[in-house]
Amino acid sequence: MSESHDLLIVNGTVVTMDEDDRVIENGAVAVADDTIESVGSAGKVNPKNAARVIDANGGIIMPGLVNTHTHASMTCFRGLADDMELMTWLNDYIFPAEAKLTRDRVYTGALLACAEMTLSGTTCFSDMYLFEDAVAEAADKAGMRAVVGEVLYDFDSPNYGPIEKGFEYTEYLIEKWREHPLVNIAIEPHSPYLCAPDLLKRAADLSERHNIPMIVHVAETWKEVETTKERYGLSPVAHMANIGVLSPRLVACHCVALDKNDIRLVADHDVKVSHNPESNMKLASGIAPVPEMLEAGICVGLGTDGPTSNNNLDMFMEMDAAAKIHKAATLDPTVMDAVKVLRMATIDAARTLGIDDQIGSLEQGKKADIIVIDTNKPHLIPMYNVFSHLVYSACGNDVTTVIINGMPVMTDRQLTMFDLNRAIKDMQDIAEDVRSLHDWDGRTGQRAR
Amino acid sequence: MSESHDLLIVNGTVVTMDEDDRVIENGAVAVADDTIESVGSAGKVNPKNAARVIDANGGIIMPGLVNTHTHASMTCFRGLADDMELMTWLNDYIFPAEAKLTRDRVYTGALLACAEMTLSGTTCFSDMYLFEDAVAEAADKAGMRAVVGEVLYDFDSPNYGPIEKGFEYTEYLIEKWREHPLVNIAIEPHSPYLCAPDLLKRAADLSERHNIPMIVHVAETWKEVETTKERYGLSPVAHMANIGVLSPRLVACHCVALDKNDIRLVADHDVKVSHNPESNMKLASGIAPVPEMLEAGICVGLGTDGPTSNNNLDMFMEMDAAAKIHKAATLDPTVMDAVKVLRMATIDAARTLGIDDQIGSLEQGKKADIIVIDTNKPHLIPMYNVFSHLVYSACGNDVTTVIINGMPVMTDRQLTMFDLNRAIKDMQDIAEDVRSLHDWDGRTGQRAR
Repeated sequence: MSESHDLLIVNGTVVTMDEDDRVIENGAVAVADDTIESVGSAGKVNPKNAARVIDANGGIIMPGLVNTHTHASMTCFRGLADDMELMTWLNDYIFPAEAKLTRDRVYTGALLACAEMTLSGTTCFSDMYLFEDAVAEAADKAGMRAVVGEVLYDFDSPNYGPIEKGFEYTEYLIEKWREHPLVNIAIEPHSPYLCAPDLLKRAADLSERHNIPMIVHVAETWKEVETTKERYGLSPVAHMANIGVLSPRLVACHCVALDKNDIRLVADHDVKVSHNPESNMKLASGIAPVPEMLEAGICVGLGTDGPTSNNNLDMFMEMDAAAKIHKAATLDPTVMDAVKVLRMATIDAARTLGIDDQIGSLEQGKKADIIVIDTNKPHLIPMYNVFSHLVYSACGNDVTTVIINGMPVMTDRQLTMFDLNRAIKDMQDIAEDVRSLHDWDGRTGQRAR
Repeated sequence: MSESHDLLIVNGTVVTMDEDDRVIENGAVAVADDTIESVGSAGKVNPKNAARVIDANGGIIMPGLVNTHTHASMTCFRGLADDMELMTWLNDYIFPAEAKLTRDRVYTGALLACAEMTLSGTTCFSDMYLFEDAVAEAADKAGMRAVVGEVLYDFDSPNYGPIEKGFEYTEYLIEKWREHPLVNIAIEPHSPYLCAPDLLKRAADLSERHNIPMIVHVAETWKEVETTKERYGLSPVAHMANIGVLSPRLVACHCVALDKNDIRLVADHDVKVSHNPESNMKLASGIAPVPEMLEAGICVGLGTDGPTSNNNLDMFMEMDAAAKIHKAATLDPTVMDAVKVLRMATIDAARTLGIDDQIGSLEQGKKADIIVIDTNKPHLIPMYNVFSHLVYSACGNDVTTVIINGMPVMTDRQLTMFDLNRAIKDMQDIAEDVRSLHDWDGRTGQRAR
């Protein structure tokens, strides 16, 4: 390791998530400016040469978690309506509430989501929603890395209006955030069932031209497959292949309802998949064939989906669910081991979003997105296997320190970048208004009759 | 409410879990000695008349969670081996480690489990393992309510030796703990595949004579069903019905592999079921037909199972899993709503263990097992529906105060009853020894080759 560092994290088990899944006991990570300078044994560094030293206190030092799919600002509506049919949920609850969305509300929702994500060890999130410029601003404020894109569909948007303006807005985002160290822009058509072939093709062209991700909901439910087959005579994936929009830049979110041919197409085009098991369970969509996808060589990253369909943004809980659900579905306990799942939440998630050259592992030259986990807690003692502990036993609250792009954005569980109480106050005001819309019965969460 | 109280909890949303699932906004709970004196509106109590006042700070006041099935002392082996075939796990890891178990180790393991359970809002647990007298002592030390029973099977036990001594040991436990305010004893034959019909019948007689629960693993896997059918020509449940050991005192744990006839038998005999979804997923056992059981009128309580097959004792995560897994399995989002799941973790869990006259809800005259949840956190703001928040968004760490039998055993997340650091130190010593047994490779958690 070199002689001097801006930041040195010492005294922890370093889980690198490099290509060998290397673990360094009593390790250290040195950071210079926004970059990881070295990763190695604690014995090889001298804390006296560091401007700032963070003591991991015998815990775990690892890459920040990467959430490949969410709708962060839906924190405004979390728990507003659950355990009901999708159409009741959308028509009676979500659409009326979203009709009153504003740029300010999206900003507040995203900022509170950034707080939750940071507090549970996520350092980068991929977001699809309305008023995404406000989401990018919230990420910038919170010091979080983000991939954001305005949702595009055939009908008018409460933000930009007609689709033509949606593409203009997206190009505006690309231009505005081009040089930002944390914010990346993506092209985000909602889905093959809400976007006509022309829209999808135009989005794919834009994605190719700028070499940035195109992020789309694909085959979330079997109902969607039915609809798409009725309309185009093809499954959603086959339809997208047919119109030529499958590419290595495409992130297909959910992919619950795939057949063997779909999996082959996704693999052949090196399409990336965002796997959201908790949302798929909660919305009764089903169980994505992830073991088959991995077997086919497809890159799969984990995501929480939005807080109304999960209902939290905790990637530790998502890892736990991902590791378990496929065992239950296949009756094979070896089908999805802890190392594989941790890769899906770190390096493979970064690869899904096309930024694995920058983040996703602790390796020299990568951006310093690092979290520290306190293992001195009853549910983490003793520790025989660090991967098992991270996937099956730990929770977001065990994260004590979060560093993003070299900046400590959380230390000792305190957020350092913004006034959380102010964001909470703003959110309470939004909630008052949402409640009034529903003539609220607090006990059941249902409208009063 | 009456004039003076030993303890008053004020300024929270009271979730009673009484038969109407009543919720009281800005409510209070008054405690006299070990008993709930009154539950009602905060406006009706005068804090000046209470010896001690706990401010819920606008959070949630609710009954403590009841874990209907665990093997607490397996904290000694958590994460020792995961993601492998059951027989590899048992023969190469668990059995060699358990062969070195002692009463002291079981005590330490149980005490650390009590810490974890208290810290995540569980106030009562039901335990099956070896050296259960030590588990009862740990519960007593930690101030936790417990139902404990020594595991009985056909072969010799590392604790008591031959089965004859096992029954003697169980009768000793019954006698010793008879008057204890927190500890209840149960009869716990392991399973119909490790217990001959005579053992099961004798256990059932003992359970009837003392009117205490008989707790048994039943139909955990389809493999078990196969084995039992080969041996007795009947499914595990049908076999147990055939030898006359089904009763309202029987707690059948897991019940993953039931057919329609089994469900009918369980319902007809008012057998109680402990549902352990996370363990069933992680061990690739499958998904218990809980919606069908509830439809048949069966009382189902939630449990975590042991920390080696989960791998934590957090009932909040168990609730989340229970609410979601059945939606994924049935593709019906309405099949297991949040209220139903919260009942399975409180009042129905108490009923499963035969102690719903004492605990499981906040009602006048019941024992004061109460938890307080801090909702002033990003992932819990805003709150539209308290049940949704508890099941889908909250985690064990959100619990700030735990009262058991009128005694605050945790306040501001600090355990009050015992020296946690001492227990941690003792556990680290045990782990050193377990590691030496396995010639440990810390990275993979596998034996070095």
